[in-house]
Amino acid sequence: MHIRLAELAERLGVELQGDGNLMITGVSTLKDAGSGEIAFLANESYRKQLADTSAGAVILRPQDAQDLATTALVTDNPYLAFAKVTQLFNNRPLVPSGIHASAVVAETASVPSDCRVGANAVIGEYVEIGAGSEIGAGTVIGDHCVLGSQCHLNANVTLYHDVILGERVRVHSGTVIGADGFGFAPDKGRWEKIAQLGGVRVGNDVEIGANTCIDRGALGDTVIGNNVILDNFVQIAHNVELGDGTAAAAQAGVAGSTKLGKHCTLAGNAGVAGHLELCDGVFVAPKTVISKSISEPGGYATGTAQMPMNEWRKSATRFRQLDSLARRVQQLEKSKKD
Amino acid sequence: MHIRLAELAERLGVELQGDGNLMITGVSTLKDAGSGEIAFLANESYRKQLADTSAGAVILRPQDAQDLATTALVTDNPYLAFAKVTQLFNNRPLVPSGIHASAVVAETASVPSDCRVGANAVIGEYVEIGAGSEIGAGTVIGDHCVLGSQCHLNANVTLYHDVILGERVRVHSGTVIGADGFGFAPDKGRWEKIAQLGGVRVGNDVEIGANTCIDRGALGDTVIGNNVILDNFVQIAHNVELGDGTAAAAQAGVAGSTKLGKHCTLAGNAGVAGHLELCDGVFVAPKTVISKSISEPGGYATGTAQMPMNEWRKSATRFRQLDSLARRVQQLEKSKKD
Amino acid sequence: MHIRLAELAERLGVELQGDGNLMITGVSTLKDAGSGEIAFLANESYRKQLADTSAGAVILRPQDAQDLATTALVTDNPYLAFAKVTQLFNNRPLVPSGIHASAVVAETASVPSDCRVGANAVIGEYVEIGAGSEIGAGTVIGDHCVLGSQCHLNANVTLYHDVILGERVRVHSGTVIGADGFGFAPDKGRWEKIAQLGGVRVGNDVEIGANTCIDRGALGDTVIGNNVILDNFVQIAHNVELGDGTAAAAQAGVAGSTKLGKHCTLAGNAGVAGHLELCDGVFVAPKTVISKSISEPGGYATGTAQMPMNEWRKSATRFRQLDSLARRVQQLEKSKKD
Repeated sequence: MHIRLAELAERLGVELQGDGNLMITGVSTLKDAGSGEIAFLANESYRKQLADTSAGAVILRPQDAQDLATTALVTDNPYLAFAKVTQLFNNRPLVPSGIHASAVVAETASVPSDCRVGANAVIGEYVEIGAGSEIGAGTVIGDHCVLGSQCHLNANVTLYHDVILGERVRVHSGTVIGADGFGFAPDKGRWEKIAQLGGVRVGNDVEIGANTCIDRGALGDTVIGNNVILDNFVQIAHNVELGDGTAAAAQAGVAGSTKLGKHCTLAGNAGVAGHLELCDGVFVAPKTVISKSISEPGGYATGTAQMPMNEWRKSATRFRQLDSLARRVQQLEKSKKD
Repeated sequence: MHIRLAELAERLGVELQGDGNLMITGVSTLKDAGSGEIAFLANESYRKQLADTSAGAVILRPQDAQDLATTALVTDNPYLAFAKVTQLFNNRPLVPSGIHASAVVAETASVPSDCRVGANAVIGEYVEIGAGSEIGAGTVIGDHCVLGSQCHLNANVTLYHDVILGERVRVHSGTVIGADGFGFAPDKGRWEKIAQLGGVRVGNDVEIGANTCIDRGALGDTVIGNNVILDNFVQIAHNVELGDGTAAAAQAGVAGSTKLGKHCTLAGNAGVAGHLELCDGVFVAPKTVISKSISEPGGYATGTAQMPMNEWRKSATRFRQLDSLARRVQQLEKSKKD
Repeated sequence: MHIRLAELAERLGVELQGDGNLMITGVSTLKDAGSGEIAFLANESYRKQLADTSAGAVILRPQDAQDLATTALVTDNPYLAFAKVTQLFNNRPLVPSGIHASAVVAETASVPSDCRVGANAVIGEYVEIGAGSEIGAGTVIGDHCVLGSQCHLNANVTLYHDVILGERVRVHSGTVIGADGFGFAPDKGRWEKIAQLGGVRVGNDVEIGANTCIDRGALGDTVIGNNVILDNFVQIAHNVELGDGTAAAAQAGVAGSTKLGKHCTLAGNAGVAGHLELCDGVFVAPKTVISKSISEPGGYATGTAQMPMNEWRKSATRFRQLDSLARRVQQLEKSKKD
């Protein structure tokens, strides 16, 4: 892949500054880029690297471009332009076209001729795959699943039966969609299984990381909105609903029947208890436990801040005594008044 | 699936109230059920939905049935009756009977004729599969494993060698049983591997969620009791023992050689350190770290409660100063006495 | 497997005490060992079991051997000697030699004749497998991957394209190496994907547990040093670098672009935020969140210590009032001065 800088500017719809004939052959960081590569400056804390970069061109904001001699693409959203450049330079090998001879595809399944189905993939009865989709090696798609066009399941993904994916849904390896939700009725000390009769519905333009789980609903479906992005190891329990544009970082989890609004963010290993509602625009800090519904947008946190262990031990000991400490302060205040 | 309400009452062993000839064609929630469906009321907080439900029949407690005109199944444990109804209406597609032509089954393995083995499954040497078991597509069973009757491994499960499952054990996709425990001896700054020579033994009527790990023992076995239920992403380290009826929600973890008693519950992302013992009936709150053995049943917790981030930051800062704060209160008390 | 104790002493390079002709047929714990088995004492808390053990021989320290009548192997590092003994007695069944007929290996891939490739494994274009490596059933290796000699990928592992493993790298089932890092640019409420153009490089003598994820770099590689050991469910985000000998226990996570030094330890479910640097020799306590870079070796922690839930609730309530409590103490101190 190589492209003239002027053409790149045009494709991205951004302003060109300097030599448009420069041939761009790759994308890199300010620190590592060579003379044929394009880099970007989106985060002010890297601004000092601008002076020393060997990049052939840099994507940056108008205010950062002003006193810069070097060639640049100028835009108000350099990170977005960078994203589009990475897509252009993406060299991911595709699964070969057609259905690999070793794949097992049910006769009742519908797989358009422009799909790519990898070795040892298994596609169940009455499955419908959308045009231009790619199914990785070893991936198993259960009966009655429906995938929209341009979906991409990487290798060793598992879809249980009756999972519906929208268009342009990407699923990474090891991820399981549609496994049984965790539902059991106690019966005199024994657990009686509640069969999970619902399914999973995923919107358009969704990305689901590796080794993530989205369980099927108990009754009714688990629902993932449009443009939701989930990282690795995310747990989405039965009957959860995630609003459009919501993001969950690695190891986050949402317990059963909880609804998240639009554009919420769960930081790494954040957890939300079951049967709650979070409004649009909630940010949950890393490793935070949300145990009550939230109706005000903004950030929420639990836990404490990082300390050396010997100091932490002292604070942790005092935490245990916190109620009595507060009562003692009350007592002091009272005796002062008297 | 459809069943007369009177027959359903008889199968469940519960009391019929109203029209026994009503044909039940599905199960749903009070809110969503239609006139041919049966719903249930187990949680008092949903009681207000009873007046407006369109359900053909409702499973509920005697006290909730009293002033109810509509058709009902009356029982002291409506949630249990509901569980049994879901099983009746379960429409999960089965793996086709017999061994799929693409599956690879060792000649020394024993697979009864009533088993179902999916496409591209791999069954190792000397494996014994119990009668009526179902092995999903792409699932790999290591040498010398033994599965009891009516086991169900979903697609893409991995069992290492010498894993023993009891009867009616269900394992969801992506789960790995019998991988090496995490054991290494330090040797002048290098890690020397401790080969994990034990196995894994799982009891009867156990359910194991998706993408969960149960490691094999270092010496001796990791042991999962009868009727244990594990959700997704549960980490069970080497030589852990879980007592009968113990439950672990998603992302919970138990470190090496720890023993949990019977009927313990680990809430989501709860963690228990290694080499501990927890007595029967312990409940561990979400994201709690248990670092000492527990000999009293009841609930245990660590962490703090949910706060808006700007308030949280103040408390977190003060937490660091907690020891000095406590000393200052002591000083004030002392000076008051003087 | 059986070996004379004298020969075992010689192989381990440790001192023999007692009958060198004793035939050792297995390895066990002090508590469970029989007369043909060898046990070990590495942890002083098990010293009391020494008197009652039925073990044929015990590996222990000189000071523990002094007043012991029974046969022993004496060494300053009994745990290391034990590790080596377990390797000797390891009876793990190997994947049969050669390439299984059902495996799908690209014509351009290089697989030396002494490798073992399991059933339904898939090896992509231009892959180079090192001599003596073992590839488990159902494992998928993407195009252009390079594996050093004596690597061992267990069943159902997934390597994306352009993943480089050193020599003697062991990867457990369900693990995904090289999936896309979690990178998206916000664009007026939509997420635009940043194609992940980097790869993953893993050093020599690395062990990677089950259901773990190491994401590929966005630009440049994610780098795992030599002799790193990762447990199950470990999340290594894009462009993370782990120094030699660093260890991460189950459910630990490191966010994007963070660098850990050598010989760091992340305890279970510890998490490190993105874009940080941790120096050599940092220990992070269980479930701790590291949100600032660390330049001093030693232990770090967040959170609180285990409490019964009703007491915990009181402390958690007071934690919310901690800032006001501290101000009230200040006030008391001030009024005392006045």
